[in-house]
Amino acid sequence: MILLRSHIGLALRTSRIQQGRTLRDVAKSARVSLGYLSEVERGQKEASSELLNSICSALDISLGEVLVNVSAQIKTHETPTLIVVDDAA
Amino acid sequence: MILLRSHIGLALRTSRIQQGRTLRDVAKSARVSLGYLSEVERGQKEASSELLNSICSALDISLGEVLVNVSAQIKTHETPTLIVVDDAA
Repeated sequence: MILLRSHIGLALRTSRIQQGRTLRDVAKSARVSLGYLSEVERGQKEASSELLNSICSALDISLGEVLVNVSAQIKTHETPTLIVVDDAA
Repeated sequence: MILLRSHIGLALRTSRIQQGRTLRDVAKSARVSLGYLSEVERGQKEASSELLNSICSALDISLGEVLVNVSAQIKTHETPTLIVVDDAA
């Protein structure tokens, strides 16, 4: 099952890792607990819209850009696999 | 402040209205309460990822497509307004 929170969490985690930052650093900057950020990143907790903004701000990334990536990921997962059967063989 | 839940709610509401369907009909199909769906549409409640999937399914729309529209809307709101000052005037 495609879960929005999983894709958002992965996108946030990817940004943080790319910046070489720790959970502790980003959590402090976003004013959320380390445990909360960790759960959001792992797709185990739905981030409220307000805290999602705080986390994006702490990472200096735009929510719009995060969602562009997330929507592309989700669309990829939604696309049914095309199986080509070659009747002529 | 840009809130993800407001933009998602508006996108869901727009799809429902375009289909000429009632809150009651979509709520029943998505197996959520009418009050819950109404609050989600008005951006007053965060939809869980699971119930967001149910609502998209009830509306026969793809979550990926909803998020493409939502991300475009949010990016529009994030773009700073450009004010042109004509010094030559």
